[in-house]
Amino acid sequence: MCAPGCVEHVRSKLSRRGFFKGAGALAAAATAAAWGPGEAEAQTFPRFSRVADLTHTHSPEFPTFFGTPGVTLKRLKEIKADGFNMFEWTVLEHSGTHIDAPIHFAASGDGPDTLPASQLVVPLAVIDVRERAVANPDYQVTPSDLRRWERRYGRLPRGCCVAMNSGWAKHVASDRFAGKDAQGVLHFPGFHPEATDWLMKERRVRGIAVDTLSLDFGASKDFKTHYAWLPSGRWGLECVANLERVPARGATLVVGAPKIRGATGGPTRVLALI
Amino acid sequence: MCAPGCVEHVRSKLSRRGFFKGAGALAAAATAAAWGPGEAEAQTFPRFSRVADLTHTHSPEFPTFFGTPGVTLKRLKEIKADGFNMFEWTVLEHSGTHIDAPIHFAASGDGPDTLPASQLVVPLAVIDVRERAVANPDYQVTPSDLRRWERRYGRLPRGCCVAMNSGWAKHVASDRFAGKDAQGVLHFPGFHPEATDWLMKERRVRGIAVDTLSLDFGASKDFKTHYAWLPSGRWGLECVANLERVPARGATLVVGAPKIRGATGGPTRVLALI
Repeated sequence: MCAPGCVEHVRSKLSRRGFFKGAGALAAAATAAAWGPGEAEAQTFPRFSRVADLTHTHSPEFPTFFGTPGVTLKRLKEIKADGFNMFEWTVLEHSGTHIDAPIHFAASGDGPDTLPASQLVVPLAVIDVRERAVANPDYQVTPSDLRRWERRYGRLPRGCCVAMNSGWAKHVASDRFAGKDAQGVLHFPGFHPEATDWLMKERRVRGIAVDTLSLDFGASKDFKTHYAWLPSGRWGLECVANLERVPARGATLVVGAPKIRGATGGPTRVLALI
Repeated sequence: MCAPGCVEHVRSKLSRRGFFKGAGALAAAATAAAWGPGEAEAQTFPRFSRVADLTHTHSPEFPTFFGTPGVTLKRLKEIKADGFNMFEWTVLEHSGTHIDAPIHFAASGDGPDTLPASQLVVPLAVIDVRERAVANPDYQVTPSDLRRWERRYGRLPRGCCVAMNSGWAKHVASDRFAGKDAQGVLHFPGFHPEATDWLMKERRVRGIAVDTLSLDFGASKDFKTHYAWLPSGRWGLECVANLERVPARGATLVVGAPKIRGATGGPTRVLALI
């Protein structure tokens, strides 16, 4: 079934950005036939009275997937000498609490600058897999984790972000966060490709979020979750903090993604309205 | 009158960050006696159903106060060769749609990383001075502009951001945005120091926003508005876009400020919930 406006949406995407060219084209087209992640979800967001900051403080010491500093600051102005303070930053695009835009793992598609603002403010669903991750640092969120959440909290809200709370955020200052072993293999939880497949086919979800360094689990050799999810036009958030401070259902996520032309992601202020 | 919790707040600020040292100390202390901008405003934010993006797309061509590129991207990874896309950015901290944190114009104070998240989600009040700015590119928002707004829309909401809509956002792609004349003097509207003084003394306001390159008007030689406002612990937003798309009263502003340790501001995703 193609929802109202879907064909027009696909057509405009095709003509405007060549969205479905290249890697992931077939997967994206198949998904769009069910629901285009760029399709508007008319909805009213609830009142809120509290803001939770789901963002880690970024710094040169913050762990990165690549093992190199994610951000460095060079002082350009100093208040005593110049009357004000100002720095220049060098930023590794995929570091800190950050967004993976579709174009990060696709030949074409939206960057953080072209994702519509309506896709950056979405209902938040938090999947708690902390107990499983304690027992197994290679744990991957499965479709049955998602179904278990739905049995308790109801169907995943339309256009939501599904966040994995693996408890990994608390390891951010230690080597356990990346979990590199003697062979150089990383060990931390992520989304199993079967879970993201299920989300793409069975539900209307805009984004996924993890409290670890990657949407795929650390030991992944093929980045299957990245290659399926991002080229479909959906986004991901990595290194999210403080997920234990938000309810499993009912919060609204605000993704303060950088609006830099041509970027493929970037450090992002992530807030939850509760 | 010191509001409940004010003394404790000031004490914790003093011990935690040496907040009131250096420039602006007296002004800040005097203001805090009336109301500390770091003081919590318990409030419930309304339901919303629409998101307006108040952020310009940043790029190497985006005009900056300093006249040098605000952001440049260097490609590190390319999808055909490397399997994914990724860049490194060089960012001039105060460029694009961005936040001025208190520390930008003070010897000590909050950066965008230490401002509490509750201060980044606030009611938005938009002051329309477009007609005045057409007639006078050196126009400065005055206390009487603020009082005129209040006569029409009611008292400024507690803890709000007051945004100047001068109509300047539409000049962003032309030389008119900076308005540099033959003598090198810039010409664009800003907040008069009397207006920000009034806001600090008479109302509880967390931030101000402008659709131009500076909180002070372009021809300012002394940056009086910056030097009064920021050291008091309040923030500013510059180069805000699309203010004509939000109501004068009733929207909620989300300031997606970068959370980078030691920064003095930075490119920011600014969204309005309507």
